[in-house]
Amino acid sequence: MAAPAVLRGATTRSWAEIEKIMASGNVKGRIAKDEVPTPALMLDLDLFEANVKKMVAHAKANNRALRPHGKTHKCPEIAKYIVKQGALGACAAKLSEAEVFAAHGVRGLLVTTAVVGKHKIERAVRLAGVAPDTIFCVDNAQNAQDLNDAAGAAKRKLWVAIDLCVSGRTGIMPGAPAVALGEQIAKLGNLRFKGIQAYAGGASHTKGWEKRKAASIAAMTPAIETRAELNKRGVETPWLSGGSTGTYNIDSGIDGITELQPGSFMFMDTDYNLIGGKETGENYADFGNALTIQATVVSRPTDAHVIIDSGYKAMATDRPFVPLLKMAGVKFAFNGDEHAKVTSTEGALKLQVGDRVEVIAPHCDPTVNLYDRIYCTRGGQVEAVWAIAARGMAQ
Amino acid sequence: MAAPAVLRGATTRSWAEIEKIMASGNVKGRIAKDEVPTPALMLDLDLFEANVKKMVAHAKANNRALRPHGKTHKCPEIAKYIVKQGALGACAAKLSEAEVFAAHGVRGLLVTTAVVGKHKIERAVRLAGVAPDTIFCVDNAQNAQDLNDAAGAAKRKLWVAIDLCVSGRTGIMPGAPAVALGEQIAKLGNLRFKGIQAYAGGASHTKGWEKRKAASIAAMTPAIETRAELNKRGVETPWLSGGSTGTYNIDSGIDGITELQPGSFMFMDTDYNLIGGKETGENYADFGNALTIQATVVSRPTDAHVIIDSGYKAMATDRPFVPLLKMAGVKFAFNGDEHAKVTSTEGALKLQVGDRVEVIAPHCDPTVNLYDRIYCTRGGQVEAVWAIAARGMAQ
Repeated sequence: MAAPAVLRGATTRSWAEIEKIMASGNVKGRIAKDEVPTPALMLDLDLFEANVKKMVAHAKANNRALRPHGKTHKCPEIAKYIVKQGALGACAAKLSEAEVFAAHGVRGLLVTTAVVGKHKIERAVRLAGVAPDTIFCVDNAQNAQDLNDAAGAAKRKLWVAIDLCVSGRTGIMPGAPAVALGEQIAKLGNLRFKGIQAYAGGASHTKGWEKRKAASIAAMTPAIETRAELNKRGVETPWLSGGSTGTYNIDSGIDGITELQPGSFMFMDTDYNLIGGKETGENYADFGNALTIQATVVSRPTDAHVIIDSGYKAMATDRPFVPLLKMAGVKFAFNGDEHAKVTSTEGALKLQVGDRVEVIAPHCDPTVNLYDRIYCTRGGQVEAVWAIAARGMAQ
Repeated sequence: MAAPAVLRGATTRSWAEIEKIMASGNVKGRIAKDEVPTPALMLDLDLFEANVKKMVAHAKANNRALRPHGKTHKCPEIAKYIVKQGALGACAAKLSEAEVFAAHGVRGLLVTTAVVGKHKIERAVRLAGVAPDTIFCVDNAQNAQDLNDAAGAAKRKLWVAIDLCVSGRTGIMPGAPAVALGEQIAKLGNLRFKGIQAYAGGASHTKGWEKRKAASIAAMTPAIETRAELNKRGVETPWLSGGSTGTYNIDSGIDGITELQPGSFMFMDTDYNLIGGKETGENYADFGNALTIQATVVSRPTDAHVIIDSGYKAMATDRPFVPLLKMAGVKFAFNGDEHAKVTSTEGALKLQVGDRVEVIAPHCDPTVNLYDRIYCTRGGQVEAVWAIAARGMAQ
């Protein structure tokens, strides 16, 4: 784990110049990392690309399809980069997120939350007109019937998958209820049955790789059995999507899981660092911490504490802030909507007003969702600024 | 505290029609509350207007100026409405937020976080060109000098106030350090000294009105003394801004505080409901809960629990979710980035897939910051859709 870097040395260029470069869209090599206004979301491209390549290679080596989750990045450029590397598409948590991806040319979409209600079903059918290979998840008979009827009225066919409840979140129960739903879908003339989505959120964050393996096998076994039962009954079920950043190298070894849908691996966060790795002990280090927040010291009320300009509105707060942010002799804590506090644990702080501090996000997905753009850097320079075009698309 | 409403009864109109109405900008009376895509941020205009009018009347009755905090709403329409009711402007937490307000015609701005670094100072001077009455906070000598020099180079005068550390967040220490800074500012030819900002964040959330009163008096006394000392030394210090939603009716009775900068009162949230009121006991009910999130049940895996479509990306997570959301026989909990879980505490849940649930936000400011728009409703109808134009402006 790299210690957060402190960037000193003010730029000599004016903000008007920087603004002009940003507006031109042609930023490569023209803006330094420490010229970006803070708080800012930063992506280390070397680490990001290595993360993506590692996951693509792992899926390929294990004969699994890979459809990384777009709820993590909400960024069409990232979705397209990952597809270019070998993924077959992107997951989207919600319909409105998928609409943004589709509008930007991303295909191979899987909408992982059921599309519920007359209006959203109308939108789903419209989306299938734009991106016909989009898969929609269904977990009850009425919703399947509603999707079928709306698709029929529009003379379209919709790909649907059963969302299976394997971790106490959404989905239909495995076994008889899911089998009955699969049989129903197979009979609905405007739906094409894809298979089963089984996302085991609980297993993903189980600490310790062996324990996590046991948890994932326990969670996924009913999904595999449900798939087998459907196939046995003549309902062709070619597809079973599981896998997360925590279980990618567990689920890729479980027979019957055909596809992985991890998300956080591309960025990583302190939350996943804490779950422990197969070969890396307590610190899960299969993927590099590519995503950081750059903040500026805006106040130094005492020698022993400074205030930086990133608070609840700049970093996800659903997990504790910063167990892994080890900067010698300091600790970090949130300090309200707009600020965080850096406190010395030994003597006076070296940080001064105007210094920049770079920290790793506590939880990547909701952190990304706070920002409109991500500054992509390589070697201290900004290489690109990508719009987080699906930011806020929780509908 | 009203129980969250469950809205049933699907609309008969198509999404295409709703979308057309939304795009027209003329929504008044044309869209029902339950036709909005969820999760959605909703503002009950009757409650909101009553909250604003009550605060304006209170400030007026107590001879205090009122400059409510714009970091709460980030919405130019709201800032302008409040000014129309009698406030003299709006606070902004950060420079980029103030820039958005100014671009939309809001004046009387106070930027409550120090503007640090060459680029942001350049932007501050530019902002003062657009909105010359904007006040900038300063908490160290170098920053004051930098602002003065940049203002001079642009041939402008900047209003500045001392940001005083009265609650362990930003600011210079009261007494001698702050007095020296005030004397310095008074001598800088391109700065106009306004006075002191002293925001006592700790006091604001102290539970129990009497305890809160004691905490606010303790926090604000050094600010009042600093102001008196500056005046005594011939540095005219006409202005002292304090006050929050928790202390508005405490600070308005403290001699020497001239202005109040509360924010949350206009919306309210469960977090402030818990601090206790002067006359309303444990439930602080001076202001109505005008801000809600409308969500939809998207899954019903068992009879005893349903999943709604609002998670970490739809509601602030820095405070516990929902101690005050009392719906008979159910409890609420977050369930990841995209979902929350509603669990029955007694028998089967009545909620079905497709039902809508309206809940009060746990913490209003960071919740608003998740959304691009706010649906303003009256009597079950959407009256306006306002852009949260400064959303994400944490810089």
